[in-house]
Amino acid sequence: MSSITGIAILGATGSVGRQSLEVIQAYPEHFNVVGLAARRSVDTMADLVDRHRPHVVVMEEDGPAEVLRGRLASDGISVQAGQAAVQELVQRPDVDLVVAAVVGRAGLPGVFAALAAGKRVAIANKEPLVMAGELLMAASERYHVELLPIDSEHAALAQLLRGVERESIDQLILTASGGPFLDADLSFVRSATPDDALAHPTWNMGAKISVDSATMMNKAFEVIEARWLFDLSQERIQVLVHPESRVHAAVKLLDGSWLAQLGPADMRIPIAQALAHPRILDLTRRLKDARSLDLCELGKLSFRDVDEGRFPALALGRQALEAGRGRPAALCVADEVLVQAFLDGRIGFGEISEGLDEVMQEFIERDIQDLDDILLAGEDGERLAASKVEG
Amino acid sequence: MSSITGIAILGATGSVGRQSLEVIQAYPEHFNVVGLAARRSVDTMADLVDRHRPHVVVMEEDGPAEVLRGRLASDGISVQAGQAAVQELVQRPDVDLVVAAVVGRAGLPGVFAALAAGKRVAIANKEPLVMAGELLMAASERYHVELLPIDSEHAALAQLLRGVERESIDQLILTASGGPFLDADLSFVRSATPDDALAHPTWNMGAKISVDSATMMNKAFEVIEARWLFDLSQERIQVLVHPESRVHAAVKLLDGSWLAQLGPADMRIPIAQALAHPRILDLTRRLKDARSLDLCELGKLSFRDVDEGRFPALALGRQALEAGRGRPAALCVADEVLVQAFLDGRIGFGEISEGLDEVMQEFIERDIQDLDDILLAGEDGERLAASKVEG
Repeated sequence: MSSITGIAILGATGSVGRQSLEVIQAYPEHFNVVGLAARRSVDTMADLVDRHRPHVVVMEEDGPAEVLRGRLASDGISVQAGQAAVQELVQRPDVDLVVAAVVGRAGLPGVFAALAAGKRVAIANKEPLVMAGELLMAASERYHVELLPIDSEHAALAQLLRGVERESIDQLILTASGGPFLDADLSFVRSATPDDALAHPTWNMGAKISVDSATMMNKAFEVIEARWLFDLSQERIQVLVHPESRVHAAVKLLDGSWLAQLGPADMRIPIAQALAHPRILDLTRRLKDARSLDLCELGKLSFRDVDEGRFPALALGRQALEAGRGRPAALCVADEVLVQAFLDGRIGFGEISEGLDEVMQEFIERDIQDLDDILLAGEDGERLAASKVEG
Repeated sequence: MSSITGIAILGATGSVGRQSLEVIQAYPEHFNVVGLAARRSVDTMADLVDRHRPHVVVMEEDGPAEVLRGRLASDGISVQAGQAAVQELVQRPDVDLVVAAVVGRAGLPGVFAALAAGKRVAIANKEPLVMAGELLMAASERYHVELLPIDSEHAALAQLLRGVERESIDQLILTASGGPFLDADLSFVRSATPDDALAHPTWNMGAKISVDSATMMNKAFEVIEARWLFDLSQERIQVLVHPESRVHAAVKLLDGSWLAQLGPADMRIPIAQALAHPRILDLTRRLKDARSLDLCELGKLSFRDVDEGRFPALALGRQALEAGRGRPAALCVADEVLVQAFLDGRIGFGEISEGLDEVMQEFIERDIQDLDDILLAGEDGERLAASKVEG
C-alpha cells in the first residue's frame, strides 16, 4: 500500500464504525478518514469528528445534522443530511473504500451506491449479502470492485482462501458457538427469556445478533453470505458447532487437508484485514490492547455437528437460499421483526423459528431484478412476521 | 499443470518412495516415472519396476544391480549402479522433479546433484536440511529451483504460507505429539526400553524417527529445517505439544490471527502437495483409501508448551542451529549413532540426550564451505558419539 486509502464509514457511530476508526487512527500512513455517516447519535458523532477530523459528516435526518452543525460551527467540516448526501459521500474522488456498517435494510442503498461508484466496499452487517447477495456480487463484478467481508467468519474464509485455488476446495466450514442453548433442555429453550438468550458464551454482541446466535439464524445468514461471497453452492458450506469460538472458519480441501483460521474475539482483526486488504497489519504491535491467541491457555478445542432439530433456523435459511426469488430477503426482515417481538416480551423464544417457518410458507415468491424488488420482498416478510406477532 | 512432470525417486523402495509412486500412479495425466533409485532391496524394486515402468533403475551397489538386471532381462529397462548413475539420472532432460527420500547422510549428494541440474527437489527425510540447510538453500537460489518439503509439518507450513506475506508473520508453530513419554514418570523415562519408546501414539513410523519423537530430537530437527526452508530466525519458530497430532503446523500473524493446517496422518497428502506444487490434488476422490479428517470424531484438540526439562534435545538443537559451523551436522549424525545404540540395547534412553549434550560439548567447530565440510562435521559427530557408546 504505497498510497493512502481514503475511507468513508456508513454507520460510523456503531461498534464496527468505532472500531474501524480505531484501526484507521493507528495507521495514519495507510488510511485517511474522508467521511462519516450515522443515523442520529449526535454526541457520539461530535466526539468522532473531534478525534478523526473527516471532511464530511452525514446524519440521516435534518434535525440531528442541524444540531451537529451548530456544535462544529467553526470547524470547516461539511455536515449534510439524508440518503442523497450519503450517495454524494461515497462518490467523492478521495474515497477509495467504504465501510458499510449500517444496521438492517437501511444499509443496502449505500452499499449499492458505493459499488456503482467503483469503490471497494468492506461490508460489516449481514443484511446486504443475505437479502441481495446475488445482485451485490453482480454489481461488484460489473463495476470491477472488491466486496470485502468484515463478518469474522467470512473474513476468516477470505484470509484462508488467499492461497487456495478454487478447484481444490471440497467444503467451507463456518463454526458456531452453539449459543446459550446448545445443551439446554428443549422445554426450557421454548420458553427462554431474553435474559437467557442474551447470555452469549463467547462474543459480546448486540441484542439482535445474540438472539440470532441462540436460534442459529445468524449461522443460516452466514451460509447465505458465504454462498455469494465465495460462489459455492450451499451444500458445500457446512456449519460445525465449536463452543470455544476460537476457530472462526475452515476450508476442507480435496486432498484431505484442512486449513483453519483462529483468533481472539476481536472485531478489529477482520476490520483491519478488510481495510488493508491484501495486507495484514501488525495490530498486536500498534494497538496497545490487541492480543493474539494463546493456544495453550485454551485447554482444548472441540467440534460437533449441528443438531438441526434443535436449530431449525439453519434449514430454513438453506431452503430460502436454494429457492431465491425474494425468500432470503423476506426471511431476513421477518427475523428482525420476530426477534424484536421476543426482546419486547411479546412472543416466546420458540416462536421465533416457528414464526419464520410460517412466514416462509405464506411468502409469495417474486421476480428479483433490482434493489427495489429486494426491498419489496423484505416488506412482505415484515408484514407476514408482524401478523404472526399480532396473531 | 498442462505438461506431464517427469519424476525420479531416490530411495524408491522406502515408505515415502512407495507412497510417492502410489500418488503418481493415480495421476497419469500429471506424472511420469522416469527413474527409481534404491539401496539394495532387489525384490521390492523388481515389483516397483513391474508396476511403474521407469526408464532407468539405479541400485547403490553392483551386486544387487546385477541380480535385478537378470530379472528384468527382456524389459529394455536400463539398470545402473552407484552414485555416478544417480547423478546421471537426476540430470536427464526428461526429469523435472526429484523425490529425495534416501535415509541418512547418504541422501545428501543426490539432493545437491538434483539442484545443480536445475531440477525441483521434493525432500522427504530430515538429514539434508538439518545437516546442510544453509548450503541447500543457497544452491536452490543459485540454480533457481524450488526445494519442496515432504515432511508433514513443513509441507503444512508451505501450504499455509501460500497466501501469507512474509512481513505479516509473527511466528511459525510446529506441533509435537509429545511422543510416548509426554506424561511418563521421569525415572521411568530414563530407563525406558526400545519397546516403550517405539509406542508412538499417532503416527506409525520407522524405529529411528519414533525414538527421535520420544526424545523430541525430531522436533529440534524440524526447527532447523523450518529455519532454512522459510528463512526465519529460530526464535520465531515455536514448538507446541499437541497430543492429538491433527494440527500439523500453524502460523501466527502479526494482526493476532492464526492459520492452522490440519489433516489425517497420511503422508500421501504432503507427498502429493510437493509433487503437484502448487496444485492440490483430489486425493480423497482418486485414492480409494484416502480419507479427510472428521473434526467432530476427534472430540477435542489440545495444546501445551513443551517442558524443556523433560525434552532437553530441543534446546540442544536450537543451540546447534544458532552456532552453526558444522554443529547441526554433527548433532544429526551423533543422534543416528546414539539412537541405534539405544535400539541395540547398548545404552539407556536417557543416555541419548546426555550423549548428544556431551558430543556438542566436545565438538570442534569447522569452517563450512561445501558438502565435504558438512560430511566431515558429520563424521566428527559420529566418532564422538561412538566413543560415548563405548565409554
